[in-house]
Amino acid sequence: MPKDKRVESITDMNQDFAQWYTDVVRKAELAEYSETGGCIIFQPYGYAIWELIQAHLDGELKATGHENVYMPMLIPENLLQKEKDHIEGFAPEVAWVTHGGSEELAERLCVRPTSETLFCSHYSNIIQSWRDLPKLYNQWCNVMRWEKTTRPFLRTREFLWQEGHTAHATAEESLAEALKILDIYCNMAENILAIPVIKGQKTEREKFAGALATYTFESMMHDGKALQTGTTHDLGDKFAQAFDIKYLDKDNKQQYVHQSSWGVTTRLIGAIIMVHGDNNGLVLPPAIAPTQVMIIPIASHKPGVEAAAKDLCTRLSKTARTKIDLSDKSPGWKFAEHEMKGIPIRLELGPKDIEAGQCIIARRDTNEKFTVSLEGDTLETAIADTLHAIHSNLFARANDRVKAKTYIAYNINELKSILDEKSGFVKAMWCRDEACEIVVKDHATATSRCIPFEQEAIGDECFVCGKPADTMVVWGRAY
Amino acid sequence: MPKDKRVESITDMNQDFAQWYTDVVRKAELAEYSETGGCIIFQPYGYAIWELIQAHLDGELKATGHENVYMPMLIPENLLQKEKDHIEGFAPEVAWVTHGGSEELAERLCVRPTSETLFCSHYSNIIQSWRDLPKLYNQWCNVMRWEKTTRPFLRTREFLWQEGHTAHATAEESLAEALKILDIYCNMAENILAIPVIKGQKTEREKFAGALATYTFESMMHDGKALQTGTTHDLGDKFAQAFDIKYLDKDNKQQYVHQSSWGVTTRLIGAIIMVHGDNNGLVLPPAIAPTQVMIIPIASHKPGVEAAAKDLCTRLSKTARTKIDLSDKSPGWKFAEHEMKGIPIRLELGPKDIEAGQCIIARRDTNEKFTVSLEGDTLETAIADTLHAIHSNLFARANDRVKAKTYIAYNINELKSILDEKSGFVKAMWCRDEACEIVVKDHATATSRCIPFEQEAIGDECFVCGKPADTMVVWGRAY
Repeated sequence: MPKDKRVESITDMNQDFAQWYTDVVRKAELAEYSETGGCIIFQPYGYAIWELIQAHLDGELKATGHENVYMPMLIPENLLQKEKDHIEGFAPEVAWVTHGGSEELAERLCVRPTSETLFCSHYSNIIQSWRDLPKLYNQWCNVMRWEKTTRPFLRTREFLWQEGHTAHATAEESLAEALKILDIYCNMAENILAIPVIKGQKTEREKFAGALATYTFESMMHDGKALQTGTTHDLGDKFAQAFDIKYLDKDNKQQYVHQSSWGVTTRLIGAIIMVHGDNNGLVLPPAIAPTQVMIIPIASHKPGVEAAAKDLCTRLSKTARTKIDLSDKSPGWKFAEHEMKGIPIRLELGPKDIEAGQCIIARRDTNEKFTVSLEGDTLETAIADTLHAIHSNLFARANDRVKAKTYIAYNINELKSILDEKSGFVKAMWCRDEACEIVVKDHATATSRCIPFEQEAIGDECFVCGKPADTMVVWGRAY
Repeated sequence: MPKDKRVESITDMNQDFAQWYTDVVRKAELAEYSETGGCIIFQPYGYAIWELIQAHLDGELKATGHENVYMPMLIPENLLQKEKDHIEGFAPEVAWVTHGGSEELAERLCVRPTSETLFCSHYSNIIQSWRDLPKLYNQWCNVMRWEKTTRPFLRTREFLWQEGHTAHATAEESLAEALKILDIYCNMAENILAIPVIKGQKTEREKFAGALATYTFESMMHDGKALQTGTTHDLGDKFAQAFDIKYLDKDNKQQYVHQSSWGVTTRLIGAIIMVHGDNNGLVLPPAIAPTQVMIIPIASHKPGVEAAAKDLCTRLSKTARTKIDLSDKSPGWKFAEHEMKGIPIRLELGPKDIEAGQCIIARRDTNEKFTVSLEGDTLETAIADTLHAIHSNLFARANDRVKAKTYIAYNINELKSILDEKSGFVKAMWCRDEACEIVVKDHATATSRCIPFEQEAIGDECFVCGKPADTMVVWGRAY
């Protein structure tokens, strides 16, 4: 008998979350391991999710005046070294091309871990006057960081992302850009991915190599661990000085430009899995579900069923991304398969339904089933409403979890025991001394996730050293 | 005074076509040289053209059942070596990653020059039964070939492309796929890029390393030289044997799959430049022009002009990709700039036009100017019709050139003198012996471009050796 794909049960997420994650990635056919160590194959279903994320974000970026470009993927070593903090941060994790064909190269080239250096070099050539500003460039591409331990989507040696690199006349403008993009990202997280986020600034210790300030949005996974979901950086004029990017202002004076850079990656797919998934597999927010409605004909051998189901598929394709499963598997088997793939709505249509002029809709997120009439546009309305309701429910569920699993700690032992026993975000006051962050790392294996923009009055002493503190930080263990 | 971008005149294309090409690439701001040898920076305007090509082709591929995936960009050396002809063809031109961070790798990895090996390795894992076939995968990505001499878009070390890799049950199906995709490509060339093509098969000598047969579409540049515009390959079961990709057929017997692969690249942008461009710069076919209509207000300091021009821009944005140039440059300067960028339609609107309820339309391809009423939907119709007319004219003009510059040769000296003195395509009969192709290469520095599907009765003796020949080949000098 041919070896069919089986919908085997997956590991219980409460037993072994890491194994559950890997099971979902593979059983939902999002990604497969490849022969290239630390790199994955994005399978059609996983890549289709990325395409929907791209389409949304690309539209937002273009609507705000950003233009797409494409830079070389290899960076000459001397160029990477121009900004001191930047090379220090990235040197340990870049891959090096040393040979072209059979010849050894005079200068080795690194595979881009990020492209600030190339954008800066280009900007120094094309920016002369205030008339040339701002430059709002973005690129969609692959990047590489030579990680030791990898996990599909969350941390792989090669990943896909967009990287924005902008140049502005003033410090105010580059800061405003970094914050504007953070808003675009957070709106996407909440309204498209149904993921609640905490917005804030990274500490000096956790900021991007070469940045003046890094802004971040952090989300909480099902197991209470944190995920840095995306970041934006205000580079100030640090790179401009290293790369000599100057413009002549309206008063005819040479000025350095001020820059920002920012990116989100295919890691977002990992966040979707770990925020919304359950023990039946993936659960997709409707906005990025490649298939939003899967029609499953019941007793499809009976006359008229398959034809009616096909007609319904054509009809619904105007309302939602709809597919029909006409394979020869049993309905139960199909149910499990499409649940594993996280398809938001299952639509069942059998001979009795056709006779009664109705169909059955089942929600992936709640397992609710209800009957809907095929008359008029009742079904269209029901589908649109249900997709909307699924999004809201996913967001509310995730948001409730964040609320339930966010704690306050007043000393380091408290923080450690919360993270050991409950897992989650921990709010605590901090004196802004990096030494205290190192203590947290060493004693509780936790990191500062961010200094939230929305500060709360929870105390006035550093929870590590007891000195005066006016900064509330969210701490956690992160992927 | 700030160093403004100047619309300096470009080299005359009839004096020095190569320099004219480089001038257009840079003055139209399509691409810039980068610090990475042999690699270019795709600037916003050049990349926007690529995005329009992608959007069209991606739609065609999805409509015919193809799915996008993403494979790692690095290929372990042992994997690249599995198919003997393939590695022989590509080994001299791949870039090698030998170090990750500070560590030397146990096995070096090449930057993909093409991804047959990775797709085959994946297919050998996921294909088991006839139910798994066909697999119709495609990916959009960057690839690298370590070229010695490079030219923007036409031949660069890194370029962008799509590569399709399919697996089928039978030899008939993989051949049909290679031919179907060739049709999709040629329809795009003619209907979207306005480039006439010759369809045919590559000779054994010119086929893809590892293929059973390669199909190609060749186009003629303004200078009469040929460009291999894109290719599709029937791989038969050659890779399936090397990578052990088998399926159990309906009779429970193990069978090798049959495969195809195919791609088009950012070289298409080079073709557009060299087929349609003129001494005023780029000329873009409307379907892939990022801006189809550029509105230029005349005497825009006069009251009401700028507002009317803006209104018109909003109005026309529903009909065509429309922009307005509100910079403080003179109209003449703007005309030259947008001509350089190949924008299909220029729309002039001044105080007198507004008074008369009209505007002026100028065609980039013919320089024709005419007045159009702003009443009703006259202007919308005129814009749509003009865009259509520009496409038809560009295609007809290019097609006339192909007809005028296609010759027949009966011996090698004739071929050489045609190519030396006139440049173009040369049809000649060939005995199918590779030795004769080598003679052509050595004596006339020309190559067989293809064996056209549409054969013609032009003789029955090989134009090189005089032996019996029943194959008409198109020969030329190629980019």
